[in-house]
Amino acid sequence: MTPFTPYQFGSRETKQAIEEDLVFAPKFDENGLIAVMAVDAHSDEALMLAYMNEESLRLTLEKGQAVYWSRSRKELWHKGATSGEFQEVVEIRTDCDQDAIVLRVIQHGGGCCHTKRSNCFYRKVVVPKSGGLVKLAPAE
Amino acid sequence: MTPFTPYQFGSRETKQAIEEDLVFAPKFDENGLIAVMAVDAHSDEALMLAYMNEESLRLTLEKGQAVYWSRSRKELWHKGATSGEFQEVVEIRTDCDQDAIVLRVIQHGGGCCHTKRSNCFYRKVVVPKSGGLVKLAPAE
Repeated sequence: MTPFTPYQFGSRETKQAIEEDLVFAPKFDENGLIAVMAVDAHSDEALMLAYMNEESLRLTLEKGQAVYWSRSRKELWHKGATSGEFQEVVEIRTDCDQDAIVLRVIQHGGGCCHTKRSNCFYRKVVVPKSGGLVKLAPAE
Repeated sequence: MTPFTPYQFGSRETKQAIEEDLVFAPKFDENGLIAVMAVDAHSDEALMLAYMNEESLRLTLEKGQAVYWSRSRKELWHKGATSGEFQEVVEIRTDCDQDAIVLRVIQHGGGCCHTKRSNCFYRKVVVPKSGGLVKLAPAE
């Protein structure tokens, strides 16, 4: 069922190669997923955190738009395909051990979050000085 | 073995409460972990992606410094405790379904990454137009 895509990823043979070589060798976890933070390409503001499996990562490379793996629905999730709120990929970064991705995107449509907000990180933690229930407050 | 901390997290009873109420009710996955993106508090630049378990999240709240859970070493990881490269927490944000955290930090010491770079996302993906091995290039 996986569509053919011509992209090949590198092998993960040595720590040195993974960290220093210029070959993309992403690591998928025991569930076949890699964590992806989508950030605004202009401001670097964090928009959302989601996951990709290998197929959705390949589709993201092909389309130039974010395609995630929905862990709750257990299906490919081409964000914006129905809502119009798609994410145009400007740059994809990976980290030292290549087990995380930062997707720098231009967010189209009304916003990133399903709550109709521009991003998903709209609340900040308020740490109570003397303990007790940890509250949230609107983030600026 | 878990040290006493007086902080209480909210219950996760309804989707409405999780998304809209101002109570911190973090969701830990089947491994007891929540994904955390550390970003520079001034520039919003992505620094690293790591994970916390409930104990490390409580310790982060207590100390005001990032304490992660090392998945490879299977132990608490107070970043900078030995290297001096600790992360001073300026703000903690959570997302709509409270299963991800953005930690806005001031990075102390030489830098964030164990490779001695200022952040872990120092390479970008180069998508080959006609397929083949996907390469990386230094990110600016």
